[in-house]
Amino acid sequence: MESRYIEFLDTTLRDGAQGEGIVFSLEDKLKIIRALDGLGVDYIEAGNPASNPRDAELFRWASKGMRLEKARLAAFGSTCRPGAKAAEASELRALAGCGAGVASIFGKASRRHVERVLQTTPEENLRIIHESVSWLAGRGMEVLFDAEHFFDGFAADPDYALAALRAAREAGASRLVLCDTNGGSLPEAIRRGVRAAVEAFGECVGVHTHNDSGLAAANALAGVEAGARHVQGTINGYGERCGNLDLCTAIPNCALKLGCRCLHEGGLERIGAAARLVADVANLPMNEKAPYVGRSAFAHKGGMHIDAMLKDQGSFEHVDPALLGGERRYLVSDLAGRGALMTRLGDIDPSLRKDSAETSRLLAAVKEMEAEGYSFEGADASLRLRLLGLLGRRPHYFELLDFHVVSRKPEDERNAQAYVKVRVDGQVEITADEGDGPVNAIDLAVRKALSRFFPCIGRMRLKDFKVRVVNSAGTASAVRVQIESTDGEHVWATVGVSSNIIEASVTALTDAVEYLLLSESEGWKG
Amino acid sequence: MESRYIEFLDTTLRDGAQGEGIVFSLEDKLKIIRALDGLGVDYIEAGNPASNPRDAELFRWASKGMRLEKARLAAFGSTCRPGAKAAEASELRALAGCGAGVASIFGKASRRHVERVLQTTPEENLRIIHESVSWLAGRGMEVLFDAEHFFDGFAADPDYALAALRAAREAGASRLVLCDTNGGSLPEAIRRGVRAAVEAFGECVGVHTHNDSGLAAANALAGVEAGARHVQGTINGYGERCGNLDLCTAIPNCALKLGCRCLHEGGLERIGAAARLVADVANLPMNEKAPYVGRSAFAHKGGMHIDAMLKDQGSFEHVDPALLGGERRYLVSDLAGRGALMTRLGDIDPSLRKDSAETSRLLAAVKEMEAEGYSFEGADASLRLRLLGLLGRRPHYFELLDFHVVSRKPEDERNAQAYVKVRVDGQVEITADEGDGPVNAIDLAVRKALSRFFPCIGRMRLKDFKVRVVNSAGTASAVRVQIESTDGEHVWATVGVSSNIIEASVTALTDAVEYLLLSESEGWKG
Repeated sequence: MESRYIEFLDTTLRDGAQGEGIVFSLEDKLKIIRALDGLGVDYIEAGNPASNPRDAELFRWASKGMRLEKARLAAFGSTCRPGAKAAEASELRALAGCGAGVASIFGKASRRHVERVLQTTPEENLRIIHESVSWLAGRGMEVLFDAEHFFDGFAADPDYALAALRAAREAGASRLVLCDTNGGSLPEAIRRGVRAAVEAFGECVGVHTHNDSGLAAANALAGVEAGARHVQGTINGYGERCGNLDLCTAIPNCALKLGCRCLHEGGLERIGAAARLVADVANLPMNEKAPYVGRSAFAHKGGMHIDAMLKDQGSFEHVDPALLGGERRYLVSDLAGRGALMTRLGDIDPSLRKDSAETSRLLAAVKEMEAEGYSFEGADASLRLRLLGLLGRRPHYFELLDFHVVSRKPEDERNAQAYVKVRVDGQVEITADEGDGPVNAIDLAVRKALSRFFPCIGRMRLKDFKVRVVNSAGTASAVRVQIESTDGEHVWATVGVSSNIIEASVTALTDAVEYLLLSESEGWKG
Repeated sequence: MESRYIEFLDTTLRDGAQGEGIVFSLEDKLKIIRALDGLGVDYIEAGNPASNPRDAELFRWASKGMRLEKARLAAFGSTCRPGAKAAEASELRALAGCGAGVASIFGKASRRHVERVLQTTPEENLRIIHESVSWLAGRGMEVLFDAEHFFDGFAADPDYALAALRAAREAGASRLVLCDTNGGSLPEAIRRGVRAAVEAFGECVGVHTHNDSGLAAANALAGVEAGARHVQGTINGYGERCGNLDLCTAIPNCALKLGCRCLHEGGLERIGAAARLVADVANLPMNEKAPYVGRSAFAHKGGMHIDAMLKDQGSFEHVDPALLGGERRYLVSDLAGRGALMTRLGDIDPSLRKDSAETSRLLAAVKEMEAEGYSFEGADASLRLRLLGLLGRRPHYFELLDFHVVSRKPEDERNAQAYVKVRVDGQVEITADEGDGPVNAIDLAVRKALSRFFPCIGRMRLKDFKVRVVNSAGTASAVRVQIESTDGEHVWATVGVSSNIIEASVTALTDAVEYLLLSESEGWKG
């Protein structure tokens, strides 16, 4: 296949947010937009300003303050309603006024849906599509037309499905996006529908697929093979029901299997990091079996497979993991763990060898902490402190001798008090503070006690705080607290685990203070 | 397409057990074998007796004590080695002696692998395939031949790939199974390979696909469309790297999309239960987004979608969930509107109309709670209590007058104490308890105080406890606590939100107690 450029629209923030258990805050959305732009996707469908006040706020904020390198922000909405005039439709005004340069609007391409769901005539549906697209295009917006239920509609009445596309195209839509809204179409049906649309309208055709039959990736590929040049999906396949097309599968498939050009130069290598960032922001566990980007995607466990891999690397891998910025792992040996650990030990003690007994001891200790529920993937600062500790080189700046937190039935925001006692160089400081909840109170008290000795703590503040239950034992479950701290210039992440959430938080907080003090005295790493 | 019968081989216990994090005990395997037989799969590949002593034990046990209704147990192994005689090969003797009636053996169909990995000549490879199959068939076993790397081999040297199949077929193999071992082939390549094999060998052709490109389901479908009548995969797609073909997707696709006959009569309806049982035995969380069998597969969240579903059930579902023994769910979230809420209000107050002012008031109140960080998606019991409250019909069984929690620097597991004061029918009870962390302590104390009045609380226990930060404001962030409770018979879920984790937990806990009391007096719903 020729080296065509395939365009991607990411709808993680809109269709993805329809997935069960997914809620994004404004800051979450901005973080994801930056990551997607760094990857090089072409459009970012960031929300629906007419139906959701938080999305309207996002567009207001983004249109003022954000400079994107490549991606264009698209606002999602619908055509006006049957019987309404486009110029008077509040849903269209919301799109035109939101600040995005691109409007993505959906309209019906299936006669059955027009009649049963929209409850209007086929002609009126064509009118509202034409008038809505035309009105938005007349306001200077680029308009993408999402033809909802296109494939079901095309199977039942191909002329009407194409007429819906024509109404949008003639009114000025830049892209006609054929949606397999229910996710029930087979690749052959996608191929037929796309082919007909490409014959009629040329290169402006795109596809939007869902995974209800486990075929989202295959359907997107079938669409691209049949001539579509625009593909819509979400990071990690987030989305309603069984999810949308997973762009982390579709983009590598287009680039590596069909030989198409995609994203920025080098974008493909960043796709694993983007997948992890979005999972992290969504506070969902990463699917480690995900094609191309999961940790298991290039992990080899069977003895015969590993033997074959060592003889011939193509034997159990369909693509080179390095192309995705990933790495091969062999699970039967602990070589993988060791390799990762060595990358951390390098700047702590360059004399440590990969096969030394000392390295084995460190690896075993890290594995033991991981078995307790620690995860150092997002907590490099804590890992560094622990490794220094295991090597007997962790400096002792302070000791937390005692603490005590009281939490009352909340009447106002200062509903918890903490008492702490610390020792620094033989001097004891006892102090207390109050806060909004017990974790906030102990955080304030610990920092207050230590600031007397270490004024640099005054510059430190918390950027992020996360809690996750790591084993399930009712209210006595162990929890993992991860925090990100900043001094305005650097950012570092620490972690604590305990069945007592206060203790887990205190571990992460004191690690954060220690890392600041260590870095101030020895220089910042990484 | 005609109503062909498609045969399924389940390899959850063999290829599935190569997945990261999967270990099955003997009892686990027996439990899974029974479930698979109940479903009506044709073959169960239960292990590799030559390489694994526990698998040998399983076959010994199963061949003596197990009566299966339909499935045949298959033992997996390899051909003899280059240079060896089949009659003297211990790997073949282990298969013949293990007690299974079926042997599934793999051999190489790719010239590259013969030369680089097996390190022998193409002719010697054909000899060992022929002699191994022939020797096993001569011992009265049915032999399935797994042609490893068939599709890569077929693409590079079709004649040699077909010669490998011919060697097995002529020696008596009942099935020729074409394997996409690396999971890198596209559906079109599968179609070509299967078509060539079916032309040469007829109906004995099968496919075995992997999900490294997210195409396992599409590749199996392409194989069946091209004439394969035997399909291999695992429950929930367990397996090395990105997993094997998920039979819970492939079987419904064959039955409902291609109209093929599969399994037992009625087997399809049991597939969701089988998926959950295997996840449970493997101790892995069920993938709730899995096509057909995940809880989200037929869950609707977007307001417009729900509205359309209520008008026309085919509008956002590609198949009827009842065919899979599943059910449709409407999620209440800030994306959903009135439609989802109505499904909950129905059994609270059937007189409430969708367009009434009262319904609008309830919807607005729910949206406001969601803006605070509440999520009722996984917390139906709390939603019911809140709706009753808004309608002025929430019963008041007890009042939590005061509480107070003290958490010390942990020295042992009883590191937190809670004091509570409750009032029931004018009687005040003050008590206290201690626990592992402040949440555990307050949980124990609240239940202790109320048990005096409501003995049924003694039967209640917590099943699950989840914490999530819902907005980021450092240690003063709001957290959402979700708990699942059970009385041994029913399960209900509640939620609390606060910047004070103790308060959020207390809300979820008291909701759980209230829901128990309400259900005991008014009957259990849903």
